[in-house]
Amino acid sequence: MRLALAQINSVLGDFPANKTKILAAVARAVEHRCELVIFPEAALFGYHPVDLLERPSLVTEQEQVLRELHKALPTGVAVLVGAIVRNASKRGKGFWNAAVLLQRGTKQLVFAKQLLPTYDVFDESRHIEPGAVAKNIFKFKGRRILVTICEDIWAWPLKNNPWYSKHGENPLRKVRRGRVDLVVNLSASPYTHTKFTNRRLVTKATARHFRTPLVYVNMVGAQDELIFDGGSFALDRRGQVLAQCLRFSEDFKIFELDGATKPVRPLSEQPWENMRAALVLGIRDFLAKTGFKKVHLGLSGGIDSALVACLAVDALGPANVTGVLLPGPFTSRQSGSLAKQLATTLGIRLLEFSIAEEYERSVRELEKVYGRLAFSLVHENLQARLRGVFLMAVSNQESSLVLGTCNKSELAVGFGTLYGDLIGALLPIGDLLKTEVFALARHYNGQSEIIPQRIIERPPTAELRAGQVDQDSLPPYEDLDRIVNSMVRGLHAPKTPLEREILHKMMKSEFKRWQAPPILKVSDHAFGRGRRFPIAHRGNV
Amino acid sequence: MRLALAQINSVLGDFPANKTKILAAVARAVEHRCELVIFPEAALFGYHPVDLLERPSLVTEQEQVLRELHKALPTGVAVLVGAIVRNASKRGKGFWNAAVLLQRGTKQLVFAKQLLPTYDVFDESRHIEPGAVAKNIFKFKGRRILVTICEDIWAWPLKNNPWYSKHGENPLRKVRRGRVDLVVNLSASPYTHTKFTNRRLVTKATARHFRTPLVYVNMVGAQDELIFDGGSFALDRRGQVLAQCLRFSEDFKIFELDGATKPVRPLSEQPWENMRAALVLGIRDFLAKTGFKKVHLGLSGGIDSALVACLAVDALGPANVTGVLLPGPFTSRQSGSLAKQLATTLGIRLLEFSIAEEYERSVRELEKVYGRLAFSLVHENLQARLRGVFLMAVSNQESSLVLGTCNKSELAVGFGTLYGDLIGALLPIGDLLKTEVFALARHYNGQSEIIPQRIIERPPTAELRAGQVDQDSLPPYEDLDRIVNSMVRGLHAPKTPLEREILHKMMKSEFKRWQAPPILKVSDHAFGRGRRFPIAHRGNV
Repeated sequence: MRLALAQINSVLGDFPANKTKILAAVARAVEHRCELVIFPEAALFGYHPVDLLERPSLVTEQEQVLRELHKALPTGVAVLVGAIVRNASKRGKGFWNAAVLLQRGTKQLVFAKQLLPTYDVFDESRHIEPGAVAKNIFKFKGRRILVTICEDIWAWPLKNNPWYSKHGENPLRKVRRGRVDLVVNLSASPYTHTKFTNRRLVTKATARHFRTPLVYVNMVGAQDELIFDGGSFALDRRGQVLAQCLRFSEDFKIFELDGATKPVRPLSEQPWENMRAALVLGIRDFLAKTGFKKVHLGLSGGIDSALVACLAVDALGPANVTGVLLPGPFTSRQSGSLAKQLATTLGIRLLEFSIAEEYERSVRELEKVYGRLAFSLVHENLQARLRGVFLMAVSNQESSLVLGTCNKSELAVGFGTLYGDLIGALLPIGDLLKTEVFALARHYNGQSEIIPQRIIERPPTAELRAGQVDQDSLPPYEDLDRIVNSMVRGLHAPKTPLEREILHKMMKSEFKRWQAPPILKVSDHAFGRGRRFPIAHRGNV
Repeated sequence: MRLALAQINSVLGDFPANKTKILAAVARAVEHRCELVIFPEAALFGYHPVDLLERPSLVTEQEQVLRELHKALPTGVAVLVGAIVRNASKRGKGFWNAAVLLQRGTKQLVFAKQLLPTYDVFDESRHIEPGAVAKNIFKFKGRRILVTICEDIWAWPLKNNPWYSKHGENPLRKVRRGRVDLVVNLSASPYTHTKFTNRRLVTKATARHFRTPLVYVNMVGAQDELIFDGGSFALDRRGQVLAQCLRFSEDFKIFELDGATKPVRPLSEQPWENMRAALVLGIRDFLAKTGFKKVHLGLSGGIDSALVACLAVDALGPANVTGVLLPGPFTSRQSGSLAKQLATTLGIRLLEFSIAEEYERSVRELEKVYGRLAFSLVHENLQARLRGVFLMAVSNQESSLVLGTCNKSELAVGFGTLYGDLIGALLPIGDLLKTEVFALARHYNGQSEIIPQRIIERPPTAELRAGQVDQDSLPPYEDLDRIVNSMVRGLHAPKTPLEREILHKMMKSEFKRWQAPPILKVSDHAFGRGRRFPIAHRGNV
């Protein structure tokens, strides 16, 4: 039997466009005489819908498009496609997250997802009712195919599988082994830098448990904070890779189920290159799916803005990226010249607005009320916020989105000015620790010096007062990052004074993160929608 | 048997302080020879913990304080107190949301909540494992007491009970009626303007179903966006009120279970006065629980800022509220004088910073790059953002929190400037439609003219360009609000061109609400954490 893996990039809520993509992939599969084409989870609706499901009219519309898709199919091919459908049982939540089997001239078959992720960025239990995996078997050309959706195969009690503990039971234990000839899994599994290995772990465990081949088809493309990295594949019963799609782009692969396809070399994880590719896709799709073409960002001569500029150029091309110099009273000459050097290397346009006079005027206006003000946080934040005002004016003038440049270490301890350097339409490196920012910058310079070496080497500084460097108010980034990583994941109570100090700062700065822009998620636990902490509380343990 | 309803205001994560409050109420109950004291849901931990439960060390600490509380109890009294405890079954999510029965010298008894709200602002399924209500019965002084927690009693299939459809089954159906002599419910049920009636509905249904008295003890106090309104009560088997606590403040009430207590007159709902009291509590507790004393806000001479100023004065007293005048190039003389008149009536301090010169300078700085700029959105947003810069400078200088003044109608259609008038530590009227803002302002003026009548009567305007009024770009507020209310609740697909236009604006302005401050929730569905919509999507149906 010949199968196709159709790894598409769906747009959330754009059912006609998604239908067109699905039909194009089906046509291609028919050309290659495939008998079954498998699409990702929620391929027709787009993922993740979150509270769009509060609007039942959207699901009605998508079900209409699903019927049109069904009617438009050619004969002789079966299609397994992810969609959101009404919960037919009429008890509990209104919808199922389903895989729908479509064949011309036969009735739709619906297979509902059982394990609903309700942790981190996932909220499926809000609107989705669980199905029963054990019922999700259909016969096709003499074979019994078990349909699973994403999380359904993640509850194996394996070492290094934290997903196991999130569920009370493994639904695959209820499926009789001898009854299955093939397992398929439709996924919308977002990239994190550890997910690649975990996916191989749970799919291999599933294939070996059932002693059957397994087909894993993952969504590709980004949606707000989430980056779906594709990388779909097929395994034989021993867990060897028979087919392998690209990561970070749409792809289409074919394989024979009956031993005619020989194992291929599996993809290997290239950590920094894959993180770069993930962030580039995240930026590109955020613009494409919100209808924007251009971005701009403040270039400070520091490493964070340099890295974001590189990523933006990779995502959109240099013609769609503008660097903005915003010199103020404490900006060093070197910062400006390093920023210009970077802009030249990247071939991006450069604008310059001085905040110096606005800053002076604003201080004078404040002093009319308060009298002479000693230099304080007031003055530091004022500079950051005036820069924000100019960046947003450029946004209004040019219909260009601001890319924020703050990183996870800064976000964690509230090192940044609300409505100042924390602004943005998107925070591309908001889930990278500062040490990861350095590592990715060095990766960029692997072939040639794209980021001026001096930007990487000089001590990080916000340049909001004379002679300031980050390490005046923060511990060394190596120590900070180790602790932030542990505290964000909630691993243990703080033990050392430094751990207590950092947890305290983290808990006290929640009000800044509450108002942060969307953050591209690349770690197992990012700030953003997947981490919901209170502002008013006293829980610092 | 004599029971006490101990309606306390817990602080999330402040276990020692909550323990002290609990012990004080127990001492008072002992004085009055009560045999059982009932506290709200999560009274020891505080509610709602959201992702604080990612830190198991916090639950460990709270369980330690629970043991201390147990040891510190006097003899002869039983205490039923809400707490978060470890899921003893070791399968599924890590914790139970429990009621714990404490009596000196006997073992703790733990009763776990079964129905876990996972909709709107509630995320209990993220960290909590369900219990089984049918097991939650204990014998006490010859009586069989059924313990339920909040949602557990909300799944009755009653007309006008939307909670019914959120759950697949009603767990109370599994409890044998004759086995129960008293039902208690520990709640942390947030105020909304429809909740009062709904609570009476489900508690009466429960009492009548079991033909037993029922005790309902609700949390009071605010936590970020949520306002718990208290109003705890006891019902006899027919649903008549035997005891009634105040709403919006801590309270303590006693009653006899055996007919010795005669029915009292039930509280009636006073819609606008209760909404006022709710918002005042919301502001007061947000400051108290984040450790701040003072607030300030921009006074524009419009109705939104006037109403927020009134609420702030009620919450914190006039000495802790500052009005800030921020005249710009299009501010009318009348706006300033109306704002001053309001400040005088309220007895609050008034500051003034002109943005006119900063505005001129910023436009000139932009024109150096862009050449002569025709008046546009750039100029409008610039004014709003410079006002934001000054409000935040006051915040830094005075350790005072900015109260935002935008309302739900504006938030819905994106009528407001990101980082400009949308800033704030809290949005007190962010869940009030503009027509509700008018109604609450008129309620304030019920006794005397606190808000100058002219503020209520003049056409709303942002004064960001010459001669501008809101109705230049928005439909009449009556029409807008009716449609916003329906679209926010997802009731139906848009039918008219105006409905389509408003839904489209709502969907396109999600990026502003993503970065909005916390919004005090008073409606069944507020913007804020309880409504999670995507930015990048095409779902406008």
